[in-house]
Amino acid sequence: MSADLILYSNPMSRGRIARWMLEEVGRPYAIEYLDYGTTMRSPEFLKINPMGKVPTLRHGEAVVTEAAAICAYLAATFPDAGLEAERGTPAYADYLRWLFFAAGPVEAAVTAKALGLLAPPEKRAMAGYGDYGSVIDTLEHAVSGKSFIAGDHFTAADLYVGAHIGWGLQFGTIESRPAFIAYRDMVEARPAFQRAKALDDEAMQRMQQQQQQQ
Amino acid sequence: MSADLILYSNPMSRGRIARWMLEEVGRPYAIEYLDYGTTMRSPEFLKINPMGKVPTLRHGEAVVTEAAAICAYLAATFPDAGLEAERGTPAYADYLRWLFFAAGPVEAAVTAKALGLLAPPEKRAMAGYGDYGSVIDTLEHAVSGKSFIAGDHFTAADLYVGAHIGWGLQFGTIESRPAFIAYRDMVEARPAFQRAKALDDEAMQRMQQQQQQQ
Repeated sequence: MSADLILYSNPMSRGRIARWMLEEVGRPYAIEYLDYGTTMRSPEFLKINPMGKVPTLRHGEAVVTEAAAICAYLAATFPDAGLEAERGTPAYADYLRWLFFAAGPVEAAVTAKALGLLAPPEKRAMAGYGDYGSVIDTLEHAVSGKSFIAGDHFTAADLYVGAHIGWGLQFGTIESRPAFIAYRDMVEARPAFQRAKALDDEAMQRMQQQQQQQ
Repeated sequence: MSADLILYSNPMSRGRIARWMLEEVGRPYAIEYLDYGTTMRSPEFLKINPMGKVPTLRHGEAVVTEAAAICAYLAATFPDAGLEAERGTPAYADYLRWLFFAAGPVEAAVTAKALGLLAPPEKRAMAGYGDYGSVIDTLEHAVSGKSFIAGDHFTAADLYVGAHIGWGLQFGTIESRPAFIAYRDMVEARPAFQRAKALDDEAMQRMQQQQQQQ
């Protein structure tokens, strides 16, 4: 059973999001760490994910890539974990809306800003994210004045959006606002986040020591 | 009942994807066209979507933004339309994987290329999409050698990925490859696509004539 769920990851990647999600689900899983440029570009791994990217999840015959898709897949596949919003309710609309908002506009705008490659104002209509300011304001609106982003309990959408906000605050790519800090503190208080962080931090140290020894 | 589903759109936007999805679902819906810069930035609309962007879908009390989220929401909410992959099967993994792949890396890389703002090779690890070439190759892999992108029937993932490919081929932002052309031809043969296209083309002509008269 433990080999049924296999996460290909790297502790210095968005794979941390997928590991946190696996810890929330609470099923046994195996983790295989890949290195940038070497094992991540091996023919065996490129057969599973031609992008040569982590995180990638295998679940029996199923393969899921994209951190948000992994979160949504695990929430849907293991409903007993209670990490999906209830279908047929407005909460499910919020659930999908904010998962895709974070995976699309937030990811694109934050990355473009960090790289100094934001679309100029006169071309904002061409960019799926419009402009960086609107994306951050909308993200603030999404997490303000409520305990959870979709419905009345913690879901995979909180995990994924919260990971973006936590990451952005840590690296300074999302500006510090009270609503972001409060939300980050809420999601990072989850025991599953703490477990996943400890495991990935330990793996990161081990991999860095191995590199220094080479 | 017809006011239960309301799509805010513009015929020169990704709103075309949402209208096509509504035509696939086959339920009555109302459409409200908004103009860039004016009605799209009105206080009333910004309350619904602070991004001031279309497409935005209202379904009773639920609000969904992001074209991919609208497709996934409608597929999940109206299961009789048969537009969702079956949960608990590997097809559901493919369904989520390619929906999020198109909404994330494809959207970001194609937009960045069109704007001349792609991440330089030495910073590829920072960009969620990696590099444009890998994104296009992976997209080709996703649609090659099978009739549908997830499982054995047409789903919202075919619609959303197909819309990106059709759009990219039309505007030259995705290079012409046989697999893309074959897939585009398959999805665009759908009667619902043809109906949505005719309706949006007609609306576009009407809006352009109104602008010329002003």
